[in-house]
Amino acid sequence: MSTTQLIEPRTLKGFRDYLPEVMIPRERLMETARRVYRSYGFSPIDTPALEYLEILSGKGSDETDRQMYRFEHGGRQVGMRFDLTIPLARFAAQHIGKLGTPFKRYHIAPVWRGENTQAGRYREFVQCDFDTIGTESVASDVETALVIHDLLQAIGLERFQLRINNRQILNGLLEKSGLQDRSQAVLRAIDKLEKLGAEAVDEELQKVGGLSNEQASSVLRLCKMSGDSAELLMQLEFELDGNPTGSSGVGRLRAIIDALKSAGISDSRYRIDVTIARGLDYYTGVVFETLLQDLPSIGSVCSGGRYDNLAGLYTKQHLPGIGASLGLDRLIAAMEQLEQLDKPKTTANVFVPFFDSERLNDYMKLCAVVRCAGYNVEFYPDSKKLGTQLKFADDRGFAVALVAGSDELNAGSCQVKDLRNKSSELVSWNQSPHQLLKAIAKILG
Amino acid sequence: MSTTQLIEPRTLKGFRDYLPEVMIPRERLMETARRVYRSYGFSPIDTPALEYLEILSGKGSDETDRQMYRFEHGGRQVGMRFDLTIPLARFAAQHIGKLGTPFKRYHIAPVWRGENTQAGRYREFVQCDFDTIGTESVASDVETALVIHDLLQAIGLERFQLRINNRQILNGLLEKSGLQDRSQAVLRAIDKLEKLGAEAVDEELQKVGGLSNEQASSVLRLCKMSGDSAELLMQLEFELDGNPTGSSGVGRLRAIIDALKSAGISDSRYRIDVTIARGLDYYTGVVFETLLQDLPSIGSVCSGGRYDNLAGLYTKQHLPGIGASLGLDRLIAAMEQLEQLDKPKTTANVFVPFFDSERLNDYMKLCAVVRCAGYNVEFYPDSKKLGTQLKFADDRGFAVALVAGSDELNAGSCQVKDLRNKSSELVSWNQSPHQLLKAIAKILG
Repeated sequence: MSTTQLIEPRTLKGFRDYLPEVMIPRERLMETARRVYRSYGFSPIDTPALEYLEILSGKGSDETDRQMYRFEHGGRQVGMRFDLTIPLARFAAQHIGKLGTPFKRYHIAPVWRGENTQAGRYREFVQCDFDTIGTESVASDVETALVIHDLLQAIGLERFQLRINNRQILNGLLEKSGLQDRSQAVLRAIDKLEKLGAEAVDEELQKVGGLSNEQASSVLRLCKMSGDSAELLMQLEFELDGNPTGSSGVGRLRAIIDALKSAGISDSRYRIDVTIARGLDYYTGVVFETLLQDLPSIGSVCSGGRYDNLAGLYTKQHLPGIGASLGLDRLIAAMEQLEQLDKPKTTANVFVPFFDSERLNDYMKLCAVVRCAGYNVEFYPDSKKLGTQLKFADDRGFAVALVAGSDELNAGSCQVKDLRNKSSELVSWNQSPHQLLKAIAKILG
Repeated sequence: MSTTQLIEPRTLKGFRDYLPEVMIPRERLMETARRVYRSYGFSPIDTPALEYLEILSGKGSDETDRQMYRFEHGGRQVGMRFDLTIPLARFAAQHIGKLGTPFKRYHIAPVWRGENTQAGRYREFVQCDFDTIGTESVASDVETALVIHDLLQAIGLERFQLRINNRQILNGLLEKSGLQDRSQAVLRAIDKLEKLGAEAVDEELQKVGGLSNEQASSVLRLCKMSGDSAELLMQLEFELDGNPTGSSGVGRLRAIIDALKSAGISDSRYRIDVTIARGLDYYTGVVFETLLQDLPSIGSVCSGGRYDNLAGLYTKQHLPGIGASLGLDRLIAAMEQLEQLDKPKTTANVFVPFFDSERLNDYMKLCAVVRCAGYNVEFYPDSKKLGTQLKFADDRGFAVALVAGSDELNAGSCQVKDLRNKSSELVSWNQSPHQLLKAIAKILG
């Protein structure tokens, strides 16, 4: 007999397994996202993980193109989706006639990017997107801000801040000086403000962007404005001096701020930030980022914005819309780092040890009674020593064990054991489950 | 200006989009699976879609190897998982020391197989697996049968049947005649019984399997036994004539039948079927298939069984276990064919049209009040004509609309409109939501 060489069990670099202790809260977060999205009338869709390469590379930037997992299959060039926006664009072009507008969808699914891995970043991660397609209404801008807020609050995060901008503001400022064609160069420069400081950015605006000294100062003034939301809106209007594009941006920003205030949301939860851009080409109106105040370095955990035309590569139909994406796995990584992730070892709350191997069906009946009342029940499959079985229950963090040997089963009773304080109560359960369920509820609260 | 060539929006062959009308019930089925699995103490895990090719091709059959999506990335050979069992084996080998046994996990995730497409079969489909690892106990055999039954019942299927076999029975029969090394050839022959008939199989058993006339007859007798479960168990015991392997198989089968009966499950829901094998190498004990009686041609929608050693390729640790897999997308395809799939167009039940564009925040407040009470509320984002907005609500199947113009908003009231019978009731909501919620509940029941 040859001894077979073992294959080393390991995951690819940048990929991870989710053990129950992380997968249980991860499932809870996805369930929360579904619940919040549905509460605003968003409906779920799903699309394939694999698409024709021409679909995926159509609009991607050089960076996403480089990061894409691509290969040939059956003579076709295919790729794994690297976000949920391009699949949405393809989906909308294909189905919007049947679906009608406004169309509100959410999509919770993994995406893949072969990027260099760093803390909190993986090559496979779940995104939770929601979008409203087929309307330019400011009502959708407002609703999107409310959904982002409600979602992060429902997840249980306390210290987060929504950063809000409107791309029309900078566009308006540039337009005012006849510089509308410079917006990409200006955005690229502004993006370096935090890293390089105002002086370097001023230089780049002038040398690379071709702005005059005065124009560069005006852009920098915009970026450095401070004050509360009302003050900022006033200063922005002053700076834009009646430019229609910019004023529209300020007006739409004001509608969001008013709505957040009117909904009673604390003003520490949101801030106007004219420096955020979220991608150079794509967004045309409001843009959102969401920072965790205790871990800003992990980046935005929920981002999005308004776009003029979702699916221009695939259809002539003009489809404006707005949406945002919760980076679920980035958020999970953040919560792990912040030790804000509760890590249960089991989904079950009631443990039933196995004593008398001749009475399996009685145990099954006991489990079924408790399960019917809505508890998750784990039955130990081997009739080992009670100590071994209870140690297992302790290790997994069970609070309740229902202990029954032959005598109890004959009498239709069992011991309801509180595994934390080790107390125990004998109850009968075969006539009516009432006493049993009451004893369990007393422990589980 | 050049006119850009549009890219045709389409999915790859064998892949499909899920529109809300199918994704809503699909999410509900996944939620049901999670609920049932959790109720038995199974906990969720997740593993990467991509694995090292050597991990995936280690145990796969020629067929799965051929169907696998594989490619090179960053100098590594990788593959997309084609089932959730091999990732579980790799996962268990890697983490079981930390997790401990018995370990009960479920895993709901897509898998990919580049197989030839046919009705109800896709190249991407979601599997919902559950397994109990680290025990040989018959209690886990029993529990697995109960979970499969509870799951299909919870999904709302009425006419399904669990087919149960134990591989030890045929092994015992062959052992009795010194033919234990022929089991694969015999299984391959038996598998053709329905397609080719007894005579052809008899011939194959003798010519290919090398069985004597008498031995082949004995195998065929086993396959053609009829009667209820109790009769079958008796006949099987007779045929096995005390062979220990076979008797163990019959005994374990009997435990399952007894438990299903004891749980009060109708005997039309299960059947002993000694012809089912579920893969030649893998299973060593009980095996399950589940057929839809109204669409048997679609194949088994939930299958599984017991295995001796899950992760032998990756670890020396002996890990016996048992599990099964619900083929969610095959089931969805079946339910679509059987017209048993309810196809809602929205997740929301309350519709709020937008009249007075100056009062956005009042509408948001009205929506929030209803949302807080647990209803899903869709607000129409554009203040179009009421007729247009209500037609939209009708098309989507909403039952309730909350209609408020400036007058109603000034008075803190709204019309609660029953969109089915067109009746309407004026209620006030700004002081207390009680009257409003009562009127909504009256319509939605």
